[in-house]
Amino acid sequence: MARVTRRHPVLRLTLDGGSRQRADRVAGEEPLEIRLDVPWTVTMRTPGDDFDLVAGFLVSEGVVSRSSDIAALTYGPGVNPDGTASYNIVDVRLAAGVAPPDADRARQVYTSSSCGICGTASIEAVRQTSVFDVAQDPTRIALPELLALPDRLRAAQRVFDATGGTHAAGLFAVDAKGRTELMCVREDVGRHNAVDKVVGWALREGRIPLSSTVLQVSGRASFELVQKAWMAGIPALAAVSAPSSLAVELAEDCGMLLAGFSRGSSVNVYAGAERVTERVPTRTAEAGAGTAR
Amino acid sequence: MARVTRRHPVLRLTLDGGSRQRADRVAGEEPLEIRLDVPWTVTMRTPGDDFDLVAGFLVSEGVVSRSSDIAALTYGPGVNPDGTASYNIVDVRLAAGVAPPDADRARQVYTSSSCGICGTASIEAVRQTSVFDVAQDPTRIALPELLALPDRLRAAQRVFDATGGTHAAGLFAVDAKGRTELMCVREDVGRHNAVDKVVGWALREGRIPLSSTVLQVSGRASFELVQKAWMAGIPALAAVSAPSSLAVELAEDCGMLLAGFSRGSSVNVYAGAERVTERVPTRTAEAGAGTAR
Repeated sequence: MARVTRRHPVLRLTLDGGSRQRADRVAGEEPLEIRLDVPWTVTMRTPGDDFDLVAGFLVSEGVVSRSSDIAALTYGPGVNPDGTASYNIVDVRLAAGVAPPDADRARQVYTSSSCGICGTASIEAVRQTSVFDVAQDPTRIALPELLALPDRLRAAQRVFDATGGTHAAGLFAVDAKGRTELMCVREDVGRHNAVDKVVGWALREGRIPLSSTVLQVSGRASFELVQKAWMAGIPALAAVSAPSSLAVELAEDCGMLLAGFSRGSSVNVYAGAERVTERVPTRTAEAGAGTAR
Repeated sequence: MARVTRRHPVLRLTLDGGSRQRADRVAGEEPLEIRLDVPWTVTMRTPGDDFDLVAGFLVSEGVVSRSSDIAALTYGPGVNPDGTASYNIVDVRLAAGVAPPDADRARQVYTSSSCGICGTASIEAVRQTSVFDVAQDPTRIALPELLALPDRLRAAQRVFDATGGTHAAGLFAVDAKGRTELMCVREDVGRHNAVDKVVGWALREGRIPLSSTVLQVSGRASFELVQKAWMAGIPALAAVSAPSSLAVELAEDCGMLLAGFSRGSSVNVYAGAERVTERVPTRTAEAGAGTAR
C-alpha cells in the first residue's frame, strides 16, 4: 500500500499536557487525469484500482454501459519530478461507435437545458441519461441483512483500519430470499470515487446492470451517489449517515430503496420501503432456536 | 429554512420489529450555476448564503482576492417547473481589470502544465495561484482553545441539529494571547461548500486575507480544503477527522497549522506544530483557581 497510504510524523497533544511524536499513516491522495484523446477531467483520488475508478466514472457519466464499450485502459506518460512514472494519467480508448462525452461535464450531468437549473431538471437530466430501469428490478432485502451491512462493510475496510481517513463503498449480491453476499469493497478519500471504483469493477467483470444488489456506503447519501447507483442499475442504496433532499427525490423517482442512518439495530427508509422484507424477526434466530415453541 | 431543509416522510425500522412512520427533516440540496457572462460551473449545494458561496469559490479558484474585485452578484433568471424563481443561478460581474477564469476549471486548479500530473505539481499550481504568504503570519493558538473548537462549532450548527446531514466550517479569530472568538459558521451538504461560504462571507466583509484566524471543519481535511484556506490567507486549519497525504504536504509547504482527529481532549498535529502554545495546562484554570497556590 505504498501509495494508498503514506507515513507522516504526527504530534499528538492532550489537554493534560501529554505530547507524543510518532509516525502515523494517512490516506494517500493524488490527482488522476482521465484522457479520451485529449484531457477530459482531473479528480483527486486515493491511488489504487485506478482502472476501476475510470471505468466507473464513465458509467456514472453515461459514456459507457457495458464492458465492451471500452476498448482499452492504459496508464499515460506522466512522470514525477524524480523521473519515475506517476501512474496519474489514464488513457481511455472507447470502442468503435461509442460517442465520446461532452466536453462540459458539469452541465451535462446536473442540468437539463430544456427546463433550467433546479432539482427537477437535475433529476430529468439523469433520467434522460440512464439506460437502466431499476424500478423493474424486483429485488427485496431482509431487514436483518440490511441492518448488518454497515458492520460487514467496516470489517472489510483495510485502508480505514490504517488511516481512519477513507470512505468506503461495498456492493452486496441479494438472493431471492433477501440474503446478501459481499461482492466488492473499494475505499477512497472521496466517497464518490469509492462508488465509482465499485461500479467500474462491476463493468470490467461484465456485471452491469447490477440487478439484485445493494450498495452500502460509509458516509452520507447525496444526489451524486444515487445518480451513480442508478446509472449502474443498482436497485438499493444504504448509507451510514443522512441523505440529502435531492438524493431522496431521485431515489423516489427511479424506484430505488434509499436507507439512511443505518446503525446496526435501526435504519431510516426514505424511499422504496416495499423492498425491505422480514421486518418482524423470525423465531428461528439463534436466541430462540430450540427453546421457544 | 424552507429550502435549507425539507420535510420527507421516513419509515424507521428496528431489529426488534419496530416500525414507525414520521416526517423527517433532510438537508436541502439543489444545483447552483455560476455565470460569468457565460455559464462557468455548476455545483450541488444547500441553498442559503449563495452569494457567500460564489464569492468564496471565486477566492478558492484564484479569480478574486478582495471585495472590490467583484462588481456585482445577482440572481439569474432561472425558474422552477411551476414558474417560480429558482434562485439557482448567480450572475457574477467582475470589476474592470479582473481577469475572468480559465474555462477549464479542473486543470487550472489541480495541475501545473510545467511538471505533469502529480502531488508536487498540484502543490506548485496552488503556490503559483496564491497571493498570500501564510508562513509570514505569526498566529499562535493556545492548546485548550484548539481542543475546544469542535464543540463550539457543533453548538452553532443549526441545520445539522435539524437534519444530521450537513458539514460545517467555523472561522475563529485568534488574539495575541492565542484565545479564539467565533466569527462565522456556515453549513452545507458539501464540506467544500461550507468552507467557500465562510471565505466568501469574509471577502464580502473586506476581511481577506484572513490573518490571525483558525478554520475548524466538521469532517476530514483534503487537499482541496487546505488549498481553500491558503487562498484565503488562513494560517490554521483543524479537522474533526483525518487529513489526506496531500493535505499534509500542502500545509507543510505553505506553513499552515494542520490539526486532525480533534476530539475535545486530544488532537493530532500534522504540520505547523510551532503554532500551538500552552501545551501544559496553567494553574489558573477554573478547577484550580482559589485553591492551588
